[in-house]
Amino acid sequence: MRPREILQSLSQPSPSKIVLLVMDGLGGLPREPGGRTELETARRPNMNALARTASLGLIDMVGSGITPGSGAGHLALFGYDPIEHQIGRGVLSALGIGMDVSAQDVCIRGNFCTLAEDGTIADRRAGRIPTAEAARLCEILGSAIPHIEDAQVAVVPEKEYRFVLRFRGPGLDGRVADTDPQKEGRRPLKAAAEVPEAKKTARLADIFAALAGQALKGRKPANGVLLRGFDTYPKIATLRELYGLNAACVGTYPMYRGLAKLVGMEVLTTSEEEDFATLARVLREAWPTFDYFFIHVKKTDSYGEDGNFEKKVEVIERVDAALVPAIVELGPGVLAIAGDHSTPAVVKGHSWHPVPLLLSSPFCRGGESEYGETACARGALGRFPAVELMSHLLAHSGRLAKFGA
Amino acid sequence: MRPREILQSLSQPSPSKIVLLVMDGLGGLPREPGGRTELETARRPNMNALARTASLGLIDMVGSGITPGSGAGHLALFGYDPIEHQIGRGVLSALGIGMDVSAQDVCIRGNFCTLAEDGTIADRRAGRIPTAEAARLCEILGSAIPHIEDAQVAVVPEKEYRFVLRFRGPGLDGRVADTDPQKEGRRPLKAAAEVPEAKKTARLADIFAALAGQALKGRKPANGVLLRGFDTYPKIATLRELYGLNAACVGTYPMYRGLAKLVGMEVLTTSEEEDFATLARVLREAWPTFDYFFIHVKKTDSYGEDGNFEKKVEVIERVDAALVPAIVELGPGVLAIAGDHSTPAVVKGHSWHPVPLLLSSPFCRGGESEYGETACARGALGRFPAVELMSHLLAHSGRLAKFGA
Repeated sequence: MRPREILQSLSQPSPSKIVLLVMDGLGGLPREPGGRTELETARRPNMNALARTASLGLIDMVGSGITPGSGAGHLALFGYDPIEHQIGRGVLSALGIGMDVSAQDVCIRGNFCTLAEDGTIADRRAGRIPTAEAARLCEILGSAIPHIEDAQVAVVPEKEYRFVLRFRGPGLDGRVADTDPQKEGRRPLKAAAEVPEAKKTARLADIFAALAGQALKGRKPANGVLLRGFDTYPKIATLRELYGLNAACVGTYPMYRGLAKLVGMEVLTTSEEEDFATLARVLREAWPTFDYFFIHVKKTDSYGEDGNFEKKVEVIERVDAALVPAIVELGPGVLAIAGDHSTPAVVKGHSWHPVPLLLSSPFCRGGESEYGETACARGALGRFPAVELMSHLLAHSGRLAKFGA
Repeated sequence: MRPREILQSLSQPSPSKIVLLVMDGLGGLPREPGGRTELETARRPNMNALARTASLGLIDMVGSGITPGSGAGHLALFGYDPIEHQIGRGVLSALGIGMDVSAQDVCIRGNFCTLAEDGTIADRRAGRIPTAEAARLCEILGSAIPHIEDAQVAVVPEKEYRFVLRFRGPGLDGRVADTDPQKEGRRPLKAAAEVPEAKKTARLADIFAALAGQALKGRKPANGVLLRGFDTYPKIATLRELYGLNAACVGTYPMYRGLAKLVGMEVLTTSEEEDFATLARVLREAWPTFDYFFIHVKKTDSYGEDGNFEKKVEVIERVDAALVPAIVELGPGVLAIAGDHSTPAVVKGHSWHPVPLLLSSPFCRGGESEYGETACARGALGRFPAVELMSHLLAHSGRLAKFGA
């Protein structure tokens, strides 16, 4: 039996509620060598109070030295091996723009491009047209090509010259090679099925490219499309199927809501803008209905990506002041605080550093004076793969029976 | 995908240089329970200065409680799973005496032995003849048997009654059972091929044993040979093939130079005796040419094996004074200091204790007041398998792209 099958076989019901609070890109680095990280710099009396009776640890999202993308980090937190469950670019882009994606779909990333008179690619990115222009072109394509054969077609702008193309219908398969030859001066490639099951999808893609060429004919600079990252919606056993968990997602950003839906969480309605008072209210209202809550905070990552150490610190301080007390007040059986990866401001991007974890329940060893990377490195939980976090959450909430007699 | 395939798929070039300084057998134990280890006892201001802004950790070379040989320890440091890549005794002995070994070779460990009149073994070790006498016998065999069929033969003394026999030629295979019956009073066994591909090698071994018997006829006490540990040169993907690393070895001792060559490092010329000024000069001269440097210091292990706590401390102090500043001055992007295993003076041999690791780069968390086993156990890196060190080195030098979108 593999670890997850063991967990599944030991699962049992429990009234204890689990909260997983994820501050995206939480893990950080000191600004000066030997200094304090963003988390360690933040005034965080509520998290520190929890740390005194919680168990701390460091989690590796994918593996030593591996910098995780957002999909991989979240899947690990939800208990899914991110190496086994790789989500392709098409679906991840679709989730990122809040597109509805389901099992009958193939999602594809598209570029608007400029084709020369002879049909070769003059500019793979159509002069990097602005998002607003791409949005208009997507509308034109959507009206001109509502379906191909028995498949519905949806075309939604992503950013600048990029869009997501979704085919929805029977018999689709994402194993199709890119039509983008990656070089200018060449013609777009025919969509090539990598397996016989994907022939229909490849045919639809070629028809789409031809119809798009007609619909965009004479336009400048975008008069053609290139298609990449063909991908089907991954089939993943849900948290309910695996552990009987009735799970909900409280978060604002489409990508994370999409990932939550992927593992079977109910995605609760929140505000358009990330606002901790609203997140707290939504959580409070849904409290009686679910037994697992994934709360997602995006701004820690955004400021990390910008290289803005102070603003990342500020977001952590606001989470500590506004969100943590609201969660604690509800009396969860288990509260875990973590990130989906590190986004140190000094790196201005995701990094490979393990993520600080705080796990609070009535069954904790340890206790540290603060919640931070250094304290977590010395914590009672040690350093372990993030995919094992779910085991801890299930155990601390009384959801795992004894293994063996 | 397995972890190394993932690393390989994420590899990207970077100008940042990596230095791995290995003090052989560095890990130690206190002389008195609760006291300080060799490393912790040494005056090491330069290592301690690094520790204040570096990340520390403990690495397990093979696994909990497993005492590694030198081959296993180094392969793990170079990123090769030492359980998957086991180097047989024949090849390890050949590397240990600085013998040239390559893909067409089978290496075998031999014993000079004493055969009775009836052909049975009277002494498996020929009265433990001294190395000098074995050297003379090896010369006799080398002249008498320059080749067998189309295979070149080389016979080189190792220590006392031991020698290494190397066959070089087409169609050889190391899967041959020992001819040493492990008991006196029996005849040497015929060399038995364990697979059909090894029949030729077994035949050559039997011919060699017969010819050696003729060449040594009438001598005392050594008048026969026993052959053990048949082994081919392992096929290992090089660091260049795996990660695009242009790697060099700076070290004096044949075994470690051989191991470095095995994984594709260029082995730089140094002095015959271990001399830190020379190692530093060789490193400095080669600095522009390579992007990964493995620097090997042997004496820490030698004194550990001797049970000489003070002398082991002294070697660490000299490395700190002479080698560490020379490395730091060159400005490596990443500097890792570790051992290939522990050799505590109180054990007088290799031990299973995890090895203290210091990893210094601009992307470090943590910071401790000193570099030592206890500080490493509390360090920001935690405890992890040594085979993952390469992932850290690649990550800290900017050589790993993000995993997943």
